[in-house]
Amino acid sequence: MADATTTTADRRRPGGRSARVRAQVLDAVRAELTENGHEGLTVEGVATRAGVHRTTVYRRWRDVGGLLVDVIDAAGEIDWQPPDTGSLRGDLTALNEEIQESLLVRPSLALALMAASFHSEQAARAQTRLWDERYAQCEIVVERAVERGELPARHTDARSLLVAATAPVYHHLVLQRAEPDPRLPERSAVAAVRAAAAGAFSAD
Amino acid sequence: MADATTTTADRRRPGGRSARVRAQVLDAVRAELTENGHEGLTVEGVATRAGVHRTTVYRRWRDVGGLLVDVIDAAGEIDWQPPDTGSLRGDLTALNEEIQESLLVRPSLALALMAASFHSEQAARAQTRLWDERYAQCEIVVERAVERGELPARHTDARSLLVAATAPVYHHLVLQRAEPDPRLPERSAVAAVRAAAAGAFSAD
Repeated sequence: MADATTTTADRRRPGGRSARVRAQVLDAVRAELTENGHEGLTVEGVATRAGVHRTTVYRRWRDVGGLLVDVIDAAGEIDWQPPDTGSLRGDLTALNEEIQESLLVRPSLALALMAASFHSEQAARAQTRLWDERYAQCEIVVERAVERGELPARHTDARSLLVAATAPVYHHLVLQRAEPDPRLPERSAVAAVRAAAAGAFSAD
Repeated sequence: MADATTTTADRRRPGGRSARVRAQVLDAVRAELTENGHEGLTVEGVATRAGVHRTTVYRRWRDVGGLLVDVIDAAGEIDWQPPDTGSLRGDLTALNEEIQESLLVRPSLALALMAASFHSEQAARAQTRLWDERYAQCEIVVERAVERGELPARHTDARSLLVAATAPVYHHLVLQRAEPDPRLPERSAVAAVRAAAAGAFSAD
């Protein structure tokens, strides 16, 4: 992935020209995506907006699919931490509120990336990896709940619990396209906590 | 919505020429959508495939957005009934299996319509109506569970329960794009039943 136009000195230095070019290009991809959707995304448009030569973009990212994958991968690189409120219910509610906000902000990059991944197999695979990473990062929320004695010590499949808690928020806003429901983040969190307490996500 | 090329005799007769033209055109929309996605959908392509004159399509459906809306509306007109297996767990599992199947069949019309509704406000609104109708039709599943004494007599918000049961299946296959999990339909149904039994979907 090193840019062939990058000098050796730049390559040695993290955060050098190569990193700067990537940041500029990915910012441009995000802006183009949220303004025009993935149908409006072109290597030329991205290069112009980023102020870099289009051959730089072609060389490093090859095509629109490559740009989409890198912008999704970059989302996985940010230093995100799941909420830590002191209770499972509080953590899952805060997580759902964060999700709801990312889907309601206009333009929504999260929505644009989901839409794009319907049309690019490469982007879809990158999205799957990003979901996996995010849910893996969230498992600490379940581990802390077990430590606090809020859940039985074993036999809770963290991923199933996290998906049950969060899926209704995505379902409501992304698929059903329903009016936002300010109570949904908490209701969905509470339902998952109760199901978990009743042993619904047993790992076996 | 009456086709101006339809004769008066045809219009009087339900299932006459107008209904036949609609059926042919919507079949063509479904075929084009599943083969080429909504980006490949054109009035010309639909007219050619349906074997009708394109002015007929323009007059009745106006544009690609109109065709999408009508194909989604038509999905709501089919005589669908939710499963009736004798238990809430059984009904929700069967429902989830039906959903999983519709999302895994290739090409999947359900997926193509969801993808299309990211790009057309009209189609998105039609999708919202279709979801509302479908979930309303499924409320009988919850009512039967209450009658059988599987759920407390009052205070279960049927829609919340139904969304909690089904959302993880859509989330897994449509958004996460994960490998199909043959146990997910039942696991997700069981989790929702346990949450409901624990009072998680109280209507107040």
